[in-house]
Amino acid sequence: MNFQDLVEKHSETIREAMEANVARTFYAHWPEPPSGKIYGETANDDGLASFKNRLHKPFAGLLQEGAEGSIGEEESPYGFPLGITYPQWSVNTLASNAVNAQKQWSRLSPADRAAICIELLEQAASYFFEIGYATMHTTGQGFVMAFQASGPHAFDRALEAVVTGLAATTYFDYSTTWTKPMGKISVTLEKRFHAVPKGPNCTIGCSTFPIWNSFPGMFASLVTGNVTITKVHPKVIYPMALCVASFQNTLQQLGLDPHIIQLATDTVTEPITFELAQHPAVKILDFTGSPSVGSEIEAIARMDGKPVFTEKAGVNCVILDSVENLDAVLDNLAFSISLYSGQMCTAPQNIFIPKSGIHQGDELIAYETVIAKFVEKIDAMANNEKMGPGTFGAIQNEATVRRLEDVSKTDCKVLRNAQPCTQQGFENARSFSPFVAEVSVTRPDIYENEWFGPITFIIPVQSFEQALEQVYKSVKINGALTTAVYSTDDGRIAAAEESLIMAGTPVAFNFTGPIWVNQSAAFSDFHGAGANPSGNASFADLSFVTNRFNMIGTRIKINS
Amino acid sequence: MNFQDLVEKHSETIREAMEANVARTFYAHWPEPPSGKIYGETANDDGLASFKNRLHKPFAGLLQEGAEGSIGEEESPYGFPLGITYPQWSVNTLASNAVNAQKQWSRLSPADRAAICIELLEQAASYFFEIGYATMHTTGQGFVMAFQASGPHAFDRALEAVVTGLAATTYFDYSTTWTKPMGKISVTLEKRFHAVPKGPNCTIGCSTFPIWNSFPGMFASLVTGNVTITKVHPKVIYPMALCVASFQNTLQQLGLDPHIIQLATDTVTEPITFELAQHPAVKILDFTGSPSVGSEIEAIARMDGKPVFTEKAGVNCVILDSVENLDAVLDNLAFSISLYSGQMCTAPQNIFIPKSGIHQGDELIAYETVIAKFVEKIDAMANNEKMGPGTFGAIQNEATVRRLEDVSKTDCKVLRNAQPCTQQGFENARSFSPFVAEVSVTRPDIYENEWFGPITFIIPVQSFEQALEQVYKSVKINGALTTAVYSTDDGRIAAAEESLIMAGTPVAFNFTGPIWVNQSAAFSDFHGAGANPSGNASFADLSFVTNRFNMIGTRIKINS
Repeated sequence: MNFQDLVEKHSETIREAMEANVARTFYAHWPEPPSGKIYGETANDDGLASFKNRLHKPFAGLLQEGAEGSIGEEESPYGFPLGITYPQWSVNTLASNAVNAQKQWSRLSPADRAAICIELLEQAASYFFEIGYATMHTTGQGFVMAFQASGPHAFDRALEAVVTGLAATTYFDYSTTWTKPMGKISVTLEKRFHAVPKGPNCTIGCSTFPIWNSFPGMFASLVTGNVTITKVHPKVIYPMALCVASFQNTLQQLGLDPHIIQLATDTVTEPITFELAQHPAVKILDFTGSPSVGSEIEAIARMDGKPVFTEKAGVNCVILDSVENLDAVLDNLAFSISLYSGQMCTAPQNIFIPKSGIHQGDELIAYETVIAKFVEKIDAMANNEKMGPGTFGAIQNEATVRRLEDVSKTDCKVLRNAQPCTQQGFENARSFSPFVAEVSVTRPDIYENEWFGPITFIIPVQSFEQALEQVYKSVKINGALTTAVYSTDDGRIAAAEESLIMAGTPVAFNFTGPIWVNQSAAFSDFHGAGANPSGNASFADLSFVTNRFNMIGTRIKINS
Repeated sequence: MNFQDLVEKHSETIREAMEANVARTFYAHWPEPPSGKIYGETANDDGLASFKNRLHKPFAGLLQEGAEGSIGEEESPYGFPLGITYPQWSVNTLASNAVNAQKQWSRLSPADRAAICIELLEQAASYFFEIGYATMHTTGQGFVMAFQASGPHAFDRALEAVVTGLAATTYFDYSTTWTKPMGKISVTLEKRFHAVPKGPNCTIGCSTFPIWNSFPGMFASLVTGNVTITKVHPKVIYPMALCVASFQNTLQQLGLDPHIIQLATDTVTEPITFELAQHPAVKILDFTGSPSVGSEIEAIARMDGKPVFTEKAGVNCVILDSVENLDAVLDNLAFSISLYSGQMCTAPQNIFIPKSGIHQGDELIAYETVIAKFVEKIDAMANNEKMGPGTFGAIQNEATVRRLEDVSKTDCKVLRNAQPCTQQGFENARSFSPFVAEVSVTRPDIYENEWFGPITFIIPVQSFEQALEQVYKSVKINGALTTAVYSTDDGRIAAAEESLIMAGTPVAFNFTGPIWVNQSAAFSDFHGAGANPSGNASFADLSFVTNRFNMIGTRIKINS
């Protein structure tokens, strides 16, 4: 098979993405605004119509063989069942399809595979709006966020994995003539080097970011020569099913085996996750989800000697020390904790504030004033019908609502109770404004747990130094995906940078305006440092791709 | 501290080594001949005098604090005790020295660390001849091999690890100004990226290649920012002690903590290996040695979540199919199995030969003729007093001699018995010529074990295809560091390449003349594919360095 045309077609994309990835500069191959001007004036309406047309029917379009029975238990967090059913495949069928497809995929060059990956993404991008609605009504994200997170942002993360994998598999030349001088004679060998894939990948997805968190592992596996099985959460199948259907269609168009990318489905009561992870045909594991399941997946991987890439969860901290403009800071923080109701792995949970107050220029603002203002900001968002509902979105999992009840029973001082939020057009939406409480620094038993959802703790401290020490310890013990520090003191910024980087967390300093600590940009921000208990992987450092293949060489003696 | 001068001093070495490493062309920074013309006319005599002067004394020159007691039980395989004693340090002392040194080493830039590593190597290279004698009289290698393996070849492998690690830690830019256009406004962040070391490395060395197998892990760790503790085999301390003494001296000269590189010593009866590997301060493990200890080290690493890089052992196979010149082939193979008495992890053990004979051009040479000729070649070497003793060297471990007795009791047909070899000047040397036997292909219970030492099996097969299938299975089950194939048929070469590469072993085709399958050249040959049961690491692919650090970023909002 010859993919030279495809390689040429996408060469500019690869070049641009690879350059941005190395330089860590801003780059987006797919624009993030869900705008008719960019994606076509009817794109939104068409996407919504496609979404509505999928409901209450068997999902059509997958080219994956060997299905046995069907499943489907998705419900929109906005308050209605989707009623879509999906085929189900046994673990053995998925494995044998993967092993067959692996033979074909292994034989392609890294350049061919990278070009094919981009073609897969480009064709699937035509479904961005339907993917957005599918994501909104499975995860509970507001539409704009759902569009961006599962569309352009996820696709850019996939492209990032593709160019990083391409760089790593082609770092060493693939052939050479090696001549060793030995005094009066010399020896010549022809050498060839092969980036040999480790074998089928299984990417286990989560219920909140079904595409964004799964694409990196899938595409890092694909570009390095491994086929992939994408195991979706039983309550959040639709967005990935749509992508896989598009991918399989493109693979078939290109004369390739559609089973190079397979969907794996199951139910809440009969999960296949562990059986799939343990299957001997599966050689590489990617996982995003809860620490408990993640730790079991890591244990399976260790037992079986499989490379594993995990993002579990952490406890993200904020330190407030001194500010230029307290309003701008609190606006930013209030939005960060409100966005998708704290259901982002990157959302802050614990905010450390000196009891002595915050310096704003020469002015000292009392601790009580700071927390009162913070609560006001959240109230304002909750009371803003245009802003609040779309920012909060809906709660993906009923357990998160129960967590709101549990947290109010802890030994904390409630500063703001969560309140039901009306989502227009969706009367039964599971939607709440954030809960905020003060907890003593002496109660890590409360605040050093992850309270996934719209739950924020304010923790008064003696000093910046105490806050930094506390956050350092928390990162080492509980892990963190992000940390935010607000200070106008260069010495404290430097101290925080040195300490927290060594603890293994990325740090955002003084974020205000339309940029939030929760956000992690493809080609620039390493997501999940891989250096603390929140997970062992990072989108997309070199380790994220180099552990998916081996370099193996052949040497042929040339008689001279 | 400023190492700009050192960076400039070694910039050309780094550039040349990095280019060769990518292009996989021949490159040697340190010439391999132990020649007076290269290293100075008195270098050999001086080295030998230094060696003799070390005997029966406490080893001097280490700058490592906190020693408690001393140990020393080295005996030359050439038949005399060395009588050198070395300081011993508790695991806790080694760990706390490492943790202290780590703080200083972490702060240096990758470029500084690479230049310092090269300075360490350059200064230690002045001890090549003493290192050669120290290696000869601990491992049993002949002097020329000892000089090359522990000197230039090992140092080049270290340089390879340094440039690979430098490339990986500097692949992504370390700072950027990131500007995201957002319609009429934009957001700008200053970003900094840090390659954060995982922390202290422990490299566990072996008794046969104390420097060659340990330097890659040590220098891959060092260049990526991690201090290292080099745990030597209790019977083979001297070569590494000499290198570490030189390294510590250089570190002190440069104003650095000598504990950036520490020696760890123990005794056969009271090993500290597992205690050291399990110590929480040790974050990265490298291991070369037996499969049983290696598997325990891997288990410790998995349990503790530490990256681990192992070379254990495999069963290396050869397939004879067809040749241009049988004599040249058998000369080459006879030398390969004789070199250092098969005590190389890369030495062939099992030679598969079709019962129907070997084609040499149009001529068919009978199987019996082939094996008779092969035995003749070994006899000729054994009877050649100039060639034999230096090639065989001496047997490092008494257990290998017992293995020669054990193998003769198996159900094999002895073609050639091992015989004592006289090493001139060393009457008590433990030295033998190779044992060769024929074993039926139906007895994998015999030949699929690793018979470490001068033991070779000839396995008659029905066909090339049967041989290839057998070798494929053997690589998958028993692992292999090398595989050699002799064929003049392009179709069979292609079939063997595809099959064996996918099995995970490097392949050498048609080696004759002064190049042997046992040899693995720095900057060109990936040693230990990391893709089969013989070990999980490869000198030095990208994984060998990328798993020793994490990329972590900080973002600072710039108000505009």
